This record gives sequence, structure tokens and C-alpha cells, in this order.
Amino acid sequence: LVHVKNPHLDLMEEDVLYHLALGTKTHNLPAMFGDIKFVCVGGSPDRMRAFAQLMQKELGLAGDGQELVDICAGTDRYAMYRTGPVLSISHGMGIPSISIMLHELIKLLHHARCRDVTIIRMGTSGGLGVEAGSVVITDVAVDSFFRPQFEQVVLDDVVVRSTELDKDLAEELLACSKQIADFPTLMGHTMCTYDFYEGQGRLDGALCSFSSEKKLQYLRRAYEAGVRNIEMESTAFAALCGLCGLRGESPPWPPL
Amino acid sequence: LVHVKNPHLDLMEEDVLYHLALGTKTHNLPAMFGDIKFVCVGGSPDRMRAFAQLMQKELGLAGDGQELVDICAGTDRYAMYRTGPVLSISHGMGIPSISIMLHELIKLLHHARCRDVTIIRMGTSGGLGVEAGSVVITDVAVDSFFRPQFEQVVLDDVVVRSTELDKDLAEELLACSKQIADFPTLMGHTMCTYDFYEGQGRLDGALCSFSSEKKLQYLRRAYEAGVRNIEMESTAFAALCGLCGLRGESPPWPPL
Repeated sequence: LVHVKNPHLDLMEEDVLYHLALGTKTHNLPAMFGDIKFVCVGGSPDRMRAFAQLMQKELGLAGDGQELVDICAGTDRYAMYRTGPVLSISHGMGIPSISIMLHELIKLLHHARCRDVTIIRMGTSGGLGVEAGSVVITDVAVDSFFRPQFEQVVLDDVVVRSTELDKDLAEELLACSKQIADFPTLMGHTMCTYDFYEGQGRLDGALCSFSSEKKLQYLRRAYEAGVRNIEMESTAFAALCGLCGLRGESPPWPPL
Repeated sequence: LVHVKNPHLDLMEEDVLYHLALGTKTHNLPAMFGDIKFVCVGGSPDRMRAFAQLMQKELGLAGDGQELVDICAGTDRYAMYRTGPVLSISHGMGIPSISIMLHELIKLLHHARCRDVTIIRMGTSGGLGVEAGSVVITDVAVDSFFRPQFEQVVLDDVVVRSTELDKDLAEELLACSKQIADFPTLMGHTMCTYDFYEGQGRLDGALCSFSSEKKLQYLRRAYEAGVRNIEMESTAFAALCGLCGLRGESPPWPPL
């Protein structure tokens, strides 16, 4: 079972999943989502719709995908589609944005009494010393200092959480990739930053105070620490899913 | 003039503003944006479209607002509309998301050779000890520890930046509010967090490890430190705009 870790929830008469435009009194969540087994998340709403259409086709379900309806149509914060047992949801960019979505998604799966749910984050990322177009399956998410941890500020305490992901699931995904030709796939650490420009060593932001050499030194140190790609959500994803009993994996791929 | 602080930019033949789907070779940025004087930003794309329609009406421009075109239609990351000298842009939720937009917006205004640009962030926020529906005009943005600073990770260095906003602009906005009846407005500190649930003392997230009492103690301390509302973007907004010569203000209002 997906579990929440919040004793206050039991005392609430209604739970409004505000940013998903869903709620326990306005929607029959067990009927809508009780049989969900896979949740796939990614940044862009358009891509998550395209992914749902691909799933519909791959699963041999009726329809051409044009009839898929955004379950979160009541808000423009996130978009959500379902095809068979697969839920496809967008989360925007960055840790705060994915965190809001995951809190409400985890409560949704809890209220819907879902069991044995696997969650996979997919997304573009910057590759580090890997062939362009490679898929990197994350074994562990690390922060900007290459530490396998996520620092969550709770009120004004800093709580450190583990960012390990499900090892068996990572191995399964790697095995799957071997069945597909021309699909370079590898396992490695994924570095998660709070910033796309200054935080990832880009030289083309509005601000840049480092040299090309300093950037390369940093990226080389990251590579030596086992980092194979860089994105902006994996540590929060790993920490939240791990704490709430979701079997999680995060295989982002380098830039399209 | 809006200025970038990046010596590398001068050496680049082309600047692609990837997340805005604009660029220096594909678009005539001075012609498109050279006369922009105000930039208004907020989280939701639908609301920023509605705001652009309101501006069109208030400025007495031709059209009913239905013909407004999303200038960033080539991407679903952000939405952008212009009405006269006012640009209206969405930034998603949280510091990483607004940071990406601001880096590319600042470069856009720089390439377009804009002068004397005022930028205002508007958005919903959690009010603290203020009447529901109040507008809080931010004098200074503070972090979860009530410090008037933004910690930016640059590669693996932590750089501390000021989060002061333009005092004259804040006073002007407060003076404007006095001309409108039934529009409770005040000036105060705005607290910016990385998380909506555990970071803002909410008792209804998927995780909650604190009691209602501990939450209230924290919010009371925040109030005593001068905080009048809480949101998720103001420190990064203040730091980036301040460094790049944009006259900035951030008056979010408590929950709608």
C-alpha cells in the first residue's frame, strides 16, 4: 500500500488536492484510480500527454489517443492522463514544483487504496561523458556536492533524507533496454540542482561568474564521483517516493 | 539598460532562449520587445493571459483580448503575452522554475535593448496575521530562517545574495492601492520557501512530522520577524532582478 506519514490526515473530513483539482468529497478516488499500477512523471504537460498516447498504443487499448482527457483540467498547474493501469502526470520544473505534485499524488494513491505502485520519472537531462541521446537509469540521486541526500527544510529545521532508488527496478529497466536496438542505456548517479544556469555550469545564463576551465573542473569532479547526468528533480523524487512506499526509478535521458 | 553579468555572452554567435522558444537569430528581439517598460510575472499561464487581457482593457487598447497570442507558443514551459508596453509571463512554481524564466527574460530584455524596465511579480500566497484577500507589497524577501538573503549554488560554491527590492516602487504601489476602495493593502516581509507543505507548516501534506502547536510557534516567530505572507519565488526574484538592473517589486496577495 502507498502510505502517507501524516497523523493529521485521519482527522480531516475532506482532503482537497488543490493543485490537481481533485478531492475526496468531489471525486470517487478509489473508483478513478484504485487499479493504477504505474505512475510515470515528467516535466512538460505536452510530453506527458504524448507519453499517455504512446502507452495506449503499446498496451493495445482502444482509441487513437486523441480522446484522452486531462484529469486535472480544472487547474493549469499540472496535467494528468490515464491509459489502462498507467497514470501519466507532468510536474513542471524543479524540486519545489515536483514536490507539490508528489505530495498530492501520494495522497491520491493513498485515498484510492492503490497497491504495489511503481513510479518512474522520465525527462531530458544534461549528459556527462555519455553519448548524446543515451538513457541514464539513476541508481542514486546526488546533490550539487555529490552527496546522496536531500535536505528538506521542515519549518526551520533542516532534515536530511536518503535519495536511494529501487535497485531491482533499476536492473529491470536496464534489462529491458537491452531488448531494444540502438538505445544506448547505462546506469549511473544523477545529479540534481536547484538552478539550470549557474548551478549546472552553463556559460550562457544572464549571470555567469566562472570560467570555462572552472566549469570543466567541476563537471570532471562530478563525473569522477559517478555522476552521468544532471537534472532538477531527482533528489526530491527519490526522497519522497522512498518515504511513502512507492517503488521508484528516475531514468532521465540526455538532451533530445 | 537591463544588463547581463556574463562575459561569455559577447562571444556567442547566437543566443537561444530555449525555454521561451525564442532566439537572437530566429527572432528580431529589438523589434518585438524594444519598447517594453513593464514586465509582470506570475505562476499560472492562464492567470497571466487573463492579466494581459485586463491590461489591454485598462490601457484602452483595441481588441477584446481574445486575439492575444502566446509569444512562447513553441514551448509549454512558460506562456508570454504582450499588451502595449506590458509583458505578462508565467513562471511556474518555485525558485528553480522562476530562475530559468528570469535568466532567459533578462537576456531577452538585454538583447532587445530595453531601458528603464520595471518588473512586478504577482501571485497568491499564504497570509500571516493579515485579513484574507489582502495584498502584501514586499519590502524585502526572506528565507525560511527569516534572513533577507538568497543562497545561490554556483557550481559547488554557495553564494549569498541580497533580496532587497526597490523601495520607491514599493511606496508607489502602496500609494496606488490607497486610490482603490475595499482593497486592503500593506507592506511587509515576504517569506520564500522551497516547499509548500512541510516548508510552510501545512498539516495536510503526504508527510507531516510536526504538531499544530509547533507549526503555530513557527508562524508566530515569522510574524514577529516581520513576515506578512509566504510564497515560493520571491528571494530568487529579488536577487536576480536586483543584480541585473531591473526595478523590481513582488506584491503577492493572500489566498484567493
